[in-house]
Amino acid sequence: MTTQPFHGVLVPVLTPFTPSGDPDLGRFVGFCRWLLDQGAGGLSVFGTTSEANSMSGPERMALLDGLIEAGIPAEKLMPGTGACSITEAASLARHAVDHSCGGVLLLPPFYYKGVPDEGVYAFVSRVIEQVASPALRIYLYHIPPVAQVGYSLDLVGHLIKAYPETVVGLKDSSGDWNNTAALLERFPGFAVFPGSEVFLLDGLRKGAVGCITASGNINVPGIKKVYDGWRGPQADALQADITALRNALQAYPMVPALKRVVAHYHNDPNWAAVRPPLVPLSQAQSAALIADLGKLGFTLGERPRSMAA
Amino acid sequence: MTTQPFHGVLVPVLTPFTPSGDPDLGRFVGFCRWLLDQGAGGLSVFGTTSEANSMSGPERMALLDGLIEAGIPAEKLMPGTGACSITEAASLARHAVDHSCGGVLLLPPFYYKGVPDEGVYAFVSRVIEQVASPALRIYLYHIPPVAQVGYSLDLVGHLIKAYPETVVGLKDSSGDWNNTAALLERFPGFAVFPGSEVFLLDGLRKGAVGCITASGNINVPGIKKVYDGWRGPQADALQADITALRNALQAYPMVPALKRVVAHYHNDPNWAAVRPPLVPLSQAQSAALIADLGKLGFTLGERPRSMAA
Repeated sequence: MTTQPFHGVLVPVLTPFTPSGDPDLGRFVGFCRWLLDQGAGGLSVFGTTSEANSMSGPERMALLDGLIEAGIPAEKLMPGTGACSITEAASLARHAVDHSCGGVLLLPPFYYKGVPDEGVYAFVSRVIEQVASPALRIYLYHIPPVAQVGYSLDLVGHLIKAYPETVVGLKDSSGDWNNTAALLERFPGFAVFPGSEVFLLDGLRKGAVGCITASGNINVPGIKKVYDGWRGPQADALQADITALRNALQAYPMVPALKRVVAHYHNDPNWAAVRPPLVPLSQAQSAALIADLGKLGFTLGERPRSMAA
Repeated sequence: MTTQPFHGVLVPVLTPFTPSGDPDLGRFVGFCRWLLDQGAGGLSVFGTTSEANSMSGPERMALLDGLIEAGIPAEKLMPGTGACSITEAASLARHAVDHSCGGVLLLPPFYYKGVPDEGVYAFVSRVIEQVASPALRIYLYHIPPVAQVGYSLDLVGHLIKAYPETVVGLKDSSGDWNNTAALLERFPGFAVFPGSEVFLLDGLRKGAVGCITASGNINVPGIKKVYDGWRGPQADALQADITALRNALQAYPMVPALKRVVAHYHNDPNWAAVRPPLVPLSQAQSAALIADLGKLGFTLGERPRSMAA
């Protein structure tokens, strides 16, 4: 297994849309810069929280081009390649490699259900063959609650064995701590990121290298305190704080809720827009969510200059 | 509701791949021509059976361009637009309209799970707005066992009411006869196609206009006998025959099984290739399947001249 460049709090970045429904590059660049300024260890643009699969490949590639042009460091980027076809996944991965991105987050093909591990293995293999670059670093994206198709422990083992320099990590959004623990035990040196900060402290104690979490969009500083201080006396208390915030968010549909929080705290209503089939929070839900966060003492702090679009 | 052009046995056409894994236009054209010669009422190219979601949009568009150039009548074509993004679904639908295809088969967005009807409605609405053509005819593609996201009865009603000239039919691959019956009762004049010939006779007796079925790839003549003779004295016996064949196929993964049957009966091993994550039948499965079909007296008949690539 090779070295891999990502550690700490990685954020699957929300994608802002313009009132006409197009990806909003200006807001996106400003937001990515702000997340890095807050201490994010990397940006998993084009994940589930990013509504990546609600955008075409060319829309995603144009956003990535825009980030790079704006000076966001490529080594901090781990674009998702979510696609059901090898053709599209390989094309998105190739594009990321051409930009020298630190890695890519590879969803398994998610249309057909109940496919055997052998079929998912063949998919990943062919993507690797088609990208054909020693610079490719793949992080497997295991999110069975949404994709339904996932990477089993055995399949992860086969992929690491076949492609030790390429398949270097995994985001575990199974929501199942036992699966995360099993990955950490079975594959030492493999970069495992729990897909929620709820498992961050437990994960770090077993060798995880950080987490990739939706709530990073609004709480990098809080989550980073756990990452930085996990060996310290405050670790459990800090973990309890971030778990409480996560639980408050999870009472609502996650992507619309996060966008509503960003819109509210940055006083920028455009941020609340989602693409169908997602639906924005209602007024009542929005008010309840902001009240819930207020009770937790949550604040995003001053809108930093780097957010200016 | 407007008139709609499709009736009878529609086939979600298998997509052949070359040994290097690319879509095989020559074989595809020959096969489409053969299906029409056999009496198919239409070709739902790029459905689930077609491995459409294992191909990129440009790959699908190139195949459609090739069919049209080869003289396959556009009015017989109902291309699937399967995509998770409005951008891609609208682009594929627009391409079909530009070719004057008879209609399109519209999958709902299938990445996010548990989305509300309101979100799926907004998706379909925006696709219709973006195509912006009175020539667009949409057939809703309801296949919850695979897509997980579907079109509820209420949602179908809302779409018909809002777009009576555009949303003209539905393929019901729920596998749930009660759902098909409810659609037929609730929306008279709406073109309902059961997604399996198992429900063909029951469907016709309640007003269905045909079926769109994977097994059409190997059994248009048998299924058409039921469609043509459903009012006659042999209807139940004919239905029993096609149900038996379907049940034999369903003991195997459907797409690899159908491709194996085509490969076998046309003596063209290339046809057996599937794209990952699907996996071809093993030698043992292949032999068992062909034996099962033999026991049913199945024969595809002579390889017709129109199959020549």
